[in-house]
Amino acid sequence: MRTKAAVAVAAGKPLEIMEVNLEGPRAGEVLVEIKATGLCHTDEFTRSGDDPEGIFPAILGHEGAGVVIEVGEGVTSLAVGDHVIPLYTPECRECEYCLNPKTNLCQKIRSTQGAGLLPDGSTRFSMLDGTPIHHYMGCSTFANHTVVPEIALAKVRKDAPFDTICYIGCGVTTGIGAVINTAKVEIGSRAIVFGLGGIGLNVIQGLRLAGADQIVGVDLNEGKVEMATRFGMTDFVNPSKVDGDLVAHLVGLTGGGADYTFDATGNVQVMRTALESAHKGWGESIIIGVAPAGAEISTRPFQLVTGRSWRGTAFGGARGRTDVPRIVDWYMDGKIEIDPMITHKLSLDEINHGFDLMHEGKSIRAVVVF
Amino acid sequence: MRTKAAVAVAAGKPLEIMEVNLEGPRAGEVLVEIKATGLCHTDEFTRSGDDPEGIFPAILGHEGAGVVIEVGEGVTSLAVGDHVIPLYTPECRECEYCLNPKTNLCQKIRSTQGAGLLPDGSTRFSMLDGTPIHHYMGCSTFANHTVVPEIALAKVRKDAPFDTICYIGCGVTTGIGAVINTAKVEIGSRAIVFGLGGIGLNVIQGLRLAGADQIVGVDLNEGKVEMATRFGMTDFVNPSKVDGDLVAHLVGLTGGGADYTFDATGNVQVMRTALESAHKGWGESIIIGVAPAGAEISTRPFQLVTGRSWRGTAFGGARGRTDVPRIVDWYMDGKIEIDPMITHKLSLDEINHGFDLMHEGKSIRAVVVF
Repeated sequence: MRTKAAVAVAAGKPLEIMEVNLEGPRAGEVLVEIKATGLCHTDEFTRSGDDPEGIFPAILGHEGAGVVIEVGEGVTSLAVGDHVIPLYTPECRECEYCLNPKTNLCQKIRSTQGAGLLPDGSTRFSMLDGTPIHHYMGCSTFANHTVVPEIALAKVRKDAPFDTICYIGCGVTTGIGAVINTAKVEIGSRAIVFGLGGIGLNVIQGLRLAGADQIVGVDLNEGKVEMATRFGMTDFVNPSKVDGDLVAHLVGLTGGGADYTFDATGNVQVMRTALESAHKGWGESIIIGVAPAGAEISTRPFQLVTGRSWRGTAFGGARGRTDVPRIVDWYMDGKIEIDPMITHKLSLDEINHGFDLMHEGKSIRAVVVF
Repeated sequence: MRTKAAVAVAAGKPLEIMEVNLEGPRAGEVLVEIKATGLCHTDEFTRSGDDPEGIFPAILGHEGAGVVIEVGEGVTSLAVGDHVIPLYTPECRECEYCLNPKTNLCQKIRSTQGAGLLPDGSTRFSMLDGTPIHHYMGCSTFANHTVVPEIALAKVRKDAPFDTICYIGCGVTTGIGAVINTAKVEIGSRAIVFGLGGIGLNVIQGLRLAGADQIVGVDLNEGKVEMATRFGMTDFVNPSKVDGDLVAHLVGLTGGGADYTFDATGNVQVMRTALESAHKGWGESIIIGVAPAGAEISTRPFQLVTGRSWRGTAFGGARGRTDVPRIVDWYMDGKIEIDPMITHKLSLDEINHGFDLMHEGKSIRAVVVF
């Protein structure tokens, strides 16, 4: 079949909207009609050429929602008409990782996914001249139709709107999951969130959901205050307005340091500040942001010896097929909010404008609606 | 009263054996006759002048065992004749830290202890000319008698020999506790221990006690193999004999990385290796060693985002008054071994020779017996 897609033809170039060939699903695969997809910083990291593992040409996008159009041989958990969210972290439920309750990093199809291929080592997308187009994070949601492995699709309820639940495919789950699955924040905790963008806001609402007593937001942009407050932020700190040492200020504000701190910036200096503003004895700092290639975090080991823990999270520690449908339920039940974070809706033809909005700091999430 | 002590008169100087004045215990304090004391690298760190927080003159030593000679006003948990182990990490059971099950870092007397003073801000030791001599880590066990706060003394059984259980005052508890209290190692785990000195050997026997399946020891000194094997090491790696990348070698040896890794070297490069040889998805790396002043650890944040945790431990996460008596029981019941690690017994007059043995790598633990 043919479908319309935004193709990343080369590193650093704008996406090109074009018709592409799409082969039907092979064994264990599913053809999905994408109804909506968010634009995430990770897509931009690869598009821009900053991602050293970026492969071109490729169809980017990993934050989508859609409908099953066709299932390949042996697919048993999904049927035509099911509503699904593609998962860049799959859940095979049988690999060493899926069987270990300490991790969500299913490795079943890791090597082919990282190489921009489906599990059998080939692509389903190609240019009209036959040139193969790589998949991206196993999802490739910047296309009206895509083929995804069965184990990388979460089945969700049919009454949930695609143009908001697509965000659960990455940002919402990453932020809320970092709080609930990775940090396992307890009621009454004090927390600091660095970076009040699309991830940070979801960390904040995760903290509210978990019953945190104090939720400090840290950002250089005062324009973030209103939205973050709406999502549960109790205190705002603009580092540019703090006299003296930021760590000392945050430790004072949280009565000795926060029980949990979260980096949602990807800046390694901020990651250090996040660790060091965690409470002596028990504070945990969780890295969510993706740092530039080659960047390193550092601190004095004394920070750890005196009881702080430095950890990280990917996809919020969520097991997608199990956890994503629950988060969709929370959204539909009003336990969490998504709508105010979807600041822009675009057509696929306008997708490059969506990246401009991201760079200008004008959007929290721009969503392409097909 | 007067007692005999080894006094650190100035940074970098050998200890001087001399008679000193010792005042009796004030309220909440206890006079202890020290029967034996181990020599730890931390004492040497301070003696040598490398410790930026070192204060002189001081009576060092923090790994002792002895008998209660006199109790001050208000002391209720100890009586004359009790056998005790001084605790450089006290356990007041009422501060914010003691009441938080996530930490053992009682802060009740932290500020005065760090300043080389007893909780009322004064010293009990002085030179015969009246010059005050500072306490050290709240213990000062390099003296035949010392005064220690009640909350910094673990009461232990009377049939346990002083010249071996003194080691439970630091090295044994630090190593075993890192495994049991901090890492909470599960049966069947795979682990790597970096540094097979006095702490590393105790990490190894802690791992054996916890039921680890694989216990890899890493050290440049082949002379450590026999003893480490005796304590439970299953595999030995000498980094100088590994072709290529040490992390890759260790990841291969442990089937994808260790569930738990422990740094018992204090070398920040080794700490990085320890983190990066922990298993993707769930590996935890615990820093035990004390790094040189100003030294920093670093790594790519990707190591944490993909599921490794970087943590630290002080006094093995043990709450001394509660946990140390249990460890003494384990020793007396044969669950753990201490005797083979006490390689040298010295008189107080020979204490500087003990530090020479440490530098020459000839001792695991030298113990001064009074």
